[in-house]
Amino acid sequence: MVIVMNREATEKDLETLKQAIEELGMQVHISKGEERTIVGLIGNKRNVEGFPFMSFNGVESVVHVTHPFKLASRDFHPDSTIVDVDGVQIGGGNVVVMAGPCSVENRDQLLESAFAVKEAGAQILRGGAFKPRTSPYAFNGLGEEGLKLLAEARELTGLKIVTELMDLENLDLVAKYTDIIQIGARNMQNFPLLRELGKINKPVMLKRGLSATIEEWLMAAEYVLSGGNKDVILCERGIRTFETATRNTLDLNAVPVVRRLSHLPVIVDPSHGTGVAAYVPAMSKAGIAVGSDGLMIEMHPNPAKALSDGAQSLTIPQFHALMQEIKALTAALGMRLEGRKTVAL
Amino acid sequence: MVIVMNREATEKDLETLKQAIEELGMQVHISKGEERTIVGLIGNKRNVEGFPFMSFNGVESVVHVTHPFKLASRDFHPDSTIVDVDGVQIGGGNVVVMAGPCSVENRDQLLESAFAVKEAGAQILRGGAFKPRTSPYAFNGLGEEGLKLLAEARELTGLKIVTELMDLENLDLVAKYTDIIQIGARNMQNFPLLRELGKINKPVMLKRGLSATIEEWLMAAEYVLSGGNKDVILCERGIRTFETATRNTLDLNAVPVVRRLSHLPVIVDPSHGTGVAAYVPAMSKAGIAVGSDGLMIEMHPNPAKALSDGAQSLTIPQFHALMQEIKALTAALGMRLEGRKTVAL
Amino acid sequence: MVIVMNREATEKDLETLKQAIEELGMQVHISKGEERTIVGLIGNKRNVEGFPFMSFNGVESVVHVTHPFKLASRDFHPDSTIVDVDGVQIGGGNVVVMAGPCSVENRDQLLESAFAVKEAGAQILRGGAFKPRTSPYAFNGLGEEGLKLLAEARELTGLKIVTELMDLENLDLVAKYTDIIQIGARNMQNFPLLRELGKINKPVMLKRGLSATIEEWLMAAEYVLSGGNKDVILCERGIRTFETATRNTLDLNAVPVVRRLSHLPVIVDPSHGTGVAAYVPAMSKAGIAVGSDGLMIEMHPNPAKALSDGAQSLTIPQFHALMQEIKALTAALGMRLEGRKTVAL
Amino acid sequence: MVIVMNREATEKDLETLKQAIEELGMQVHISKGEERTIVGLIGNKRNVEGFPFMSFNGVESVVHVTHPFKLASRDFHPDSTIVDVDGVQIGGGNVVVMAGPCSVENRDQLLESAFAVKEAGAQILRGGAFKPRTSPYAFNGLGEEGLKLLAEARELTGLKIVTELMDLENLDLVAKYTDIIQIGARNMQNFPLLRELGKINKPVMLKRGLSATIEEWLMAAEYVLSGGNKDVILCERGIRTFETATRNTLDLNAVPVVRRLSHLPVIVDPSHGTGVAAYVPAMSKAGIAVGSDGLMIEMHPNPAKALSDGAQSLTIPQFHALMQEIKALTAALGMRLEGRKTVAL
Repeated sequence: MVIVMNREATEKDLETLKQAIEELGMQVHISKGEERTIVGLIGNKRNVEGFPFMSFNGVESVVHVTHPFKLASRDFHPDSTIVDVDGVQIGGGNVVVMAGPCSVENRDQLLESAFAVKEAGAQILRGGAFKPRTSPYAFNGLGEEGLKLLAEARELTGLKIVTELMDLENLDLVAKYTDIIQIGARNMQNFPLLRELGKINKPVMLKRGLSATIEEWLMAAEYVLSGGNKDVILCERGIRTFETATRNTLDLNAVPVVRRLSHLPVIVDPSHGTGVAAYVPAMSKAGIAVGSDGLMIEMHPNPAKALSDGAQSLTIPQFHALMQEIKALTAALGMRLEGRKTVAL
Repeated sequence: MVIVMNREATEKDLETLKQAIEELGMQVHISKGEERTIVGLIGNKRNVEGFPFMSFNGVESVVHVTHPFKLASRDFHPDSTIVDVDGVQIGGGNVVVMAGPCSVENRDQLLESAFAVKEAGAQILRGGAFKPRTSPYAFNGLGEEGLKLLAEARELTGLKIVTELMDLENLDLVAKYTDIIQIGARNMQNFPLLRELGKINKPVMLKRGLSATIEEWLMAAEYVLSGGNKDVILCERGIRTFETATRNTLDLNAVPVVRRLSHLPVIVDPSHGTGVAAYVPAMSKAGIAVGSDGLMIEMHPNPAKALSDGAQSLTIPQFHALMQEIKALTAALGMRLEGRKTVAL
Repeated sequence: MVIVMNREATEKDLETLKQAIEELGMQVHISKGEERTIVGLIGNKRNVEGFPFMSFNGVESVVHVTHPFKLASRDFHPDSTIVDVDGVQIGGGNVVVMAGPCSVENRDQLLESAFAVKEAGAQILRGGAFKPRTSPYAFNGLGEEGLKLLAEARELTGLKIVTELMDLENLDLVAKYTDIIQIGARNMQNFPLLRELGKINKPVMLKRGLSATIEEWLMAAEYVLSGGNKDVILCERGIRTFETATRNTLDLNAVPVVRRLSHLPVIVDPSHGTGVAAYVPAMSKAGIAVGSDGLMIEMHPNPAKALSDGAQSLTIPQFHALMQEIKALTAALGMRLEGRKTVAL
Repeated sequence: MVIVMNREATEKDLETLKQAIEELGMQVHISKGEERTIVGLIGNKRNVEGFPFMSFNGVESVVHVTHPFKLASRDFHPDSTIVDVDGVQIGGGNVVVMAGPCSVENRDQLLESAFAVKEAGAQILRGGAFKPRTSPYAFNGLGEEGLKLLAEARELTGLKIVTELMDLENLDLVAKYTDIIQIGARNMQNFPLLRELGKINKPVMLKRGLSATIEEWLMAAEYVLSGGNKDVILCERGIRTFETATRNTLDLNAVPVVRRLSHLPVIVDPSHGTGVAAYVPAMSKAGIAVGSDGLMIEMHPNPAKALSDGAQSLTIPQFHALMQEIKALTAALGMRLEGRKTVAL
């Protein structure tokens, strides 16, 4: 951390600041430039996280030169983390595809989806049992009944399951059924929830918030990691920008940035990222080529009858066609499509 | 709602769409233009909220022509709502000032703040007992101890209290102590929480999410209203934009927009809106002049010792000076500063 | 400027960097922290503007601790600049109102507008003769004919004139007629144009670009100032954000930020800032209360017949009513409405 | 276009609006819904572009249901346009790579770059002779001397040339030397310049503005097309968002959106899109996989000595390695790397 003094700062201001820093257990390094005096802080920056240096006389600005996350950083953990989901490995050069309907609607819809996902060579079935909806009047999921159907689909297909948890109340319930707990974009900074997720022994997929910086996203991961749960998967799903041609702006730049800053695996969700089925294939391929650890794609047997997010769902044939392209692409890029060989079974 | 067909849409596509709409209990109104056919939907739009029209053949786009909220709209409730907080009225031409420290830190800090708030002529004391923090390592509030101190401050000063609720677990606890339950920006779309707030009998102040459109904000209010709780106060606290000179971009435009679309009172928070104490006075005055129902301002006896948000906190003298300016301003604008006459006591 | 080294940086990397910095005529100040080594640069930072430190081995990031503008900064010029427009003073505690139609359409429209502006107590007439239009098929102004009508209106009313210049070709022509040259948001970084504006002797009003940071805006002003023209007026006119309820997001936060960083006067344009006439009065009052040096407001004798921007234009009676409110407000705030006393003439 | 009436709209308001529309040569189609009356406009929408319907009594909002561009739209021109640059084809399934230094700095630097670009199998050399710089004190290009060096490099390598034009003054000069005229992001809405580009016979590469919607970008292309110049190439180069980990947010979503809306070829610039050399390879591969018509990449023989944009420039070996990956990728995707076979010559 570097503190920049303003032009009016006096020697006394500097001394007061220096004392406050030293009381926090840090050392001070002062550089007097032509226009400004700069105060460098040396020591464990976590002691000063959020300390109100801006309220000291003579301080013009506070500049952070290192990132505030530690356990999530590649500095701390140079090797890439591989999250093992009951045999399916996420991270480490694999490409994993998670697919399925936005919501679990009924047994037929889910099982038809699950077999189609399996047949196409994907490894993980997605489906929402608890749905966050902008409108209080919209369908908000089947609840435990949906979780049971997901478990049945896993039984029948061998796929792993990922589903969303919306609140602490349902943590035990969701954890009982799913293989990966998904935390949605709107809950990325639900700190009480993140704290509890740190205490369980189940992979967590943390979606990036609509307006979260990559640093904030990694700080959210830090909440889970700092509780002891090391199995965190990140998922880029689009940010909010001025552009309205797509529902969100899928930020693929985040993938190489996360790779550089963190050891955690990162998945791309082109369905929420664009909100338009027609753009999903192109963005899926880009999501692979950019070097992510996999994709999460919405697919529905009949999007025109979907109870949620039909507009962004691929049909089964569209999904199968896309998977063929993804296979060619991963091969060309020297990546391995996780579980691909077992598809023929 | 208006559905725009693409150029390739056939008569059969149009017929299929028409049937689906009629099955939803709506009527169809078709306009064939030179370039596009447009399908208007007539009837209760809530039936079709989220229906996947984009997945039908021949559909190019879906255009919403009315807002999705009902109970929050001025159409539904033409008169402005006044929320009565145990005698302090929010809305209806009053200007209410809520002030106090970001966090409740200890008894001395809170009581000194409370008396200063009272003396300056404000009506409501703010202070956080549960704090959402970006870092898992930062101070996150005193919990119930903080609530008790707030209640004591109320007892001693006669001020009303507003404090943040972060999760369902603590709903009963927080509701027991506070006069207004504050829902923070990060929880604006915590739908399970919003649903429960609809069931209680206590005013709710709903902060706008960092990247929430005004429409989404009013939909979040709709969650609370639709549960039966009519006492919702909105609070603009800055949105996330590309500009980094301020921590957030306080969006004062939201005030006249909300006025036009909704009957709910709206408060402005220049402290979080800018994140810099030096900008709070100017933005407070602008927040009054723009026609809001009041302000929420962070003030601390010693910002340089604050455990959170010191950089954006006014000192007590700065706050008192600002209140003098606000009084002159409200008078010039023909508004009434709620409780102003009692200040001299 | 501070350069942060990454963990892998070697002593040799540090030495190479140090040499490069010293070759640029700067001194080096090295702080070795627990996690990172930080290199501070001391000396005239303009020598290193844009230097590719990021391309050196071992460099993790480059952090700017001071602003890149000099002539536009309050550090360099502590007193606020007052721009004298042939007797009308902009800056220094005055509030100046510029008003008139978006485009000059014909003699009747312009003169009716001009007399209404005069009567309401404003000092400067606005009107576009050259119009930047998103569509190549839209009305793009009367050109020199429009400039002549503006000059006639000045003759008849005594108002000063502000009109937009779109390109170098018309610089002499526009400068011949107008009192203030307006540079539109889309031209804020038209660097060849800015350079030429630095060479003339005529006030320039520089609108903030739709996605320009305040720092970039001040750098654009620096272009003009560095050429020798000291009469630069800034104009905040709304930035582009995710919110679509308003055409742009008028960023009033920019006013106190500019005040702190710069000595240049700053004007607020609520018409372009919101794009909706109904929101203009509220945002105008906020624009005054926030401490700007004045307003630029679109007004049209018959907005429903306007050739451009009718949706955001006030009618003459609406403008007159607003001016009454503005007068009360400026008085309450201890500001002076420039030229108010002469209105009765 | 659809006009939504508010609840207070009277029959007389509707009649007045209807007459105004019919006077514009359009037909009116009225749908009376339960909550709102909707007025559809049928006919040539260009007549009503910018008409101030919002200023009519009783009008709540105006909703555009079709795009305002015509010549740039795929509706108008269903087949994809291929721009022939003296034998190098851009569009139509080819992948073209443009590479070279940000600025032309001197003969050695440019020729070394040009031969490296040629050897790597790219087809077009980039290099700026006129540079838009945020700071008035920064290097702003060699001017005509730079253009001459580019022409010499073309002579020696057979590569085509693309370079930026910043203003009308230099149009003839730049057009004399270059094969493609590049219009930078800051000039995307420099309408006088766009108009002139419509009158010449030379391909124009139009970069997307930092905060331009895709619709505005296509409207800028419409300016050029409407003047008669059909050879417009679009270039996505990153938009401005809240994220600061990258200099801009390269918006790859724009590629499939442009494909759907327009027939024009679209190129991706990962160098400006991210601003960080380390992220360029990943985003380049994503740019290919998403289906663009090519890439524009900054490469410099010695980025640490570059006079501009060194931080985002690849070294020659990095660029060569990336080209190998791009070749494998284009093959896997069934695309053709333009001119690849001739590289060995």
